Amino acid sequence: MDKKDNRRNFIKRAAAAATGMAGLSILPNVGLPNNNAVTDGIHIIGPREGFSPQMGTLLSMMTWMRNVVVLGVENMTKEELDYLHDPNANTIGAMLLHLAATERQYQIKTFEWDIDFRGDGKINWDAAMRLGEKGRKLIKGNGLDYYLNILNETRLATINEFKKRDDDWLSKIDPSGFQKMPTNNYCKWFHVCEHESNHNGQIKWIKSRLPGAKPGND
Amino acid sequence: MDKKDNRRNFIKRAAAAATGMAGLSILPNVGLPNNNAVTDGIHIIGPREGFSPQMGTLLSMMTWMRNVVVLGVENMTKEELDYLHDPNANTIGAMLLHLAATERQYQIKTFEWDIDFRGDGKINWDAAMRLGEKGRKLIKGNGLDYYLNILNETRLATINEFKKRDDDWLSKIDPSGFQKMPTNNYCKWFHVCEHESNHNGQIKWIKSRLPGAKPGND
Repeated sequence: MDKKDNRRNFIKRAAAAATGMAGLSILPNVGLPNNNAVTDGIHIIGPREGFSPQMGTLLSMMTWMRNVVVLGVENMTKEELDYLHDPNANTIGAMLLHLAATERQYQIKTFEWDIDFRGDGKINWDAAMRLGEKGRKLIKGNGLDYYLNILNETRLATINEFKKRDDDWLSKIDPSGFQKMPTNNYCKWFHVCEHESNHNGQIKWIKSRLPGAKPGND
Repeated sequence: MDKKDNRRNFIKRAAAAATGMAGLSILPNVGLPNNNAVTDGIHIIGPREGFSPQMGTLLSMMTWMRNVVVLGVENMTKEELDYLHDPNANTIGAMLLHLAATERQYQIKTFEWDIDFRGDGKINWDAAMRLGEKGRKLIKGNGLDYYLNILNETRLATINEFKKRDDDWLSKIDPSGFQKMPTNNYCKWFHVCEHESNHNGQIKWIKSRLPGAKPGND
């Protein structure tokens, strides 16, 4: 299986899980823009079967956003993922793991999982969360699949929990959640989503400055 | 009025418009984190009075996101807004205008405004949309208020149109909207929203590399 197939399968798995219809033939054909048979496509934000209306809508945003990130790093080599633009920068690889770490942290917080954020030691979640010096030192030498698989596994766990919850849960208020101001679970998960775009902007910035890259508009 | 007051007033006006209750005393106290009297705060994603449920929810995300961007550039000087990190970079000022240009473009597209994107010539929307060489050449020498006022005016126009539309409009399908795949107005406006985060990631990256800046984690 080549890299392109790997990526397509990754997206298909995530999209399938997001629609709640894994294995059926009406999967959104992400990455296949000329197929017009899409009925519940990636670019439709709204409810999804198997989820409460707002939960499905939020998930459709998260799926859309993740697709953008994954397409942007398609075919990146280990060297590109480890490229450090300046001594204070984060690598693209570290930022990908950071997205998974952020999602995991919000899983633990909002799903009230009784586990240690650092987990079983296989993944350095702490370095991924902190980035900076620790990230530069400890997150490197991994191929793209390493990052995509962790992102995918983390997302599947989110989807599994979203299925068990409803719109009331999303609107549940946490009185001092963000900056000591009231927030709700919708805001927390919207932040997980937009945070991917924040780092995607940085990924694109670095990508257009990789050695030998064609300068872009970022 | 000092810069801080300017920013606070900007946020208050945008937030007031977003709640649909400008002038009333229950405005979200954005930027005043220790005030616990908030009933409809910035960090609550969900319906807003005066808007259909999904329209209000989307607007609450857009307001949240804009707040993050505006807080990030607080007190920036003209020199900082014009700082060019390398010959292919965009300035922070140009990126702020680019956010307004993007919103304007989606206004014209989705509200079906019969006007020229370039407008009356007062604002170089084309340079702001394109960024790159044209942006570097034509967008400079402006203070923060210039950008914040354009962002604010553009947002107020969006809010005004959102009030006239409903959830059915948001879910309306455009058969070949994104990458020749079906999309809906919700997806288009979600993109306008997450796109602010994309550039905010780049703004933060540049901000921590401004001459004399304390290195950050971006």
